[in-house]
Amino acid sequence: MTISFTDAKSLNHDQLEEGTAFAPRFDAHGLITVVTLEDGSNDVLMVAHMNAETLSLTLESGIAHYWSRSRKAIWKKGETSGEMQEVIELRTDCDQDCLVMVVRQTGRGAACHTGRKSCFYRKVIMTDGTASLEDTGLPRLFDPEAVYGG
Amino acid sequence: MTISFTDAKSLNHDQLEEGTAFAPRFDAHGLITVVTLEDGSNDVLMVAHMNAETLSLTLESGIAHYWSRSRKAIWKKGETSGEMQEVIELRTDCDQDCLVMVVRQTGRGAACHTGRKSCFYRKVIMTDGTASLEDTGLPRLFDPEAVYGG
Repeated sequence: MTISFTDAKSLNHDQLEEGTAFAPRFDAHGLITVVTLEDGSNDVLMVAHMNAETLSLTLESGIAHYWSRSRKAIWKKGETSGEMQEVIELRTDCDQDCLVMVVRQTGRGAACHTGRKSCFYRKVIMTDGTASLEDTGLPRLFDPEAVYGG
Repeated sequence: MTISFTDAKSLNHDQLEEGTAFAPRFDAHGLITVVTLEDGSNDVLMVAHMNAETLSLTLESGIAHYWSRSRKAIWKKGETSGEMQEVIELRTDCDQDCLVMVVRQTGRGAACHTGRKSCFYRKVIMTDGTASLEDTGLPRLFDPEAVYGG
């Protein structure tokens, strides 16, 4: 079974922004941006993309499926690492070109391929007008070499 | 003064993902996706884009400046509505193609042009295999007609 979505072009501005029809506006590459949050803390774990097929798979299964732009393939999150994501809630924004997905991160709780909980483990600092990065200290919950290497 | 960023192409994989050089990877349109969070609650307020110029303006001024894809212009958030965003922290992700920006939302606390705090005021519900949207009940903090209309 595949879930079909409303065609955003069939909706007027008010229907798109205030209505009950789910009409995800995929971009020219057929993708929509997904911001994935940890249930409870609201921490941003990662930002990735879905196409219609992986959005449908995610809604059907309740498990996060993304589209890997680098591999050009369905990316069932955690298939290699064991770090799967159970979907708690999926929200859309006003003009339906972006999604927020609240998940329960399984496994060791690491959404990032570097082994950290979140991909956002560095912050920008300004020193004398120059921008650089500083580690915020998120620990590695797994060793990426052991999980993905060899 | 304009802030210059490191060219991501000059970095190897480890430098990009674990280093201290800030090398935002703008896409083919010169844009990078920014997820804007409310300081304290961690609520996602909006998702928008910056180019190098508005990222630089944001870092220099401490006030959120985006790039409006629809107007093709610098978008100093809150210039019309008064709902400006003071930047508390800016984070980058592992491969530096996305930013998370933590802000203090000024004005009436509404980041969305519909007058709501967040753009993500609807969630997806599944009924008999069909996806539709349900309002999560975020109140309107201003009347968009009064702010943007006429």
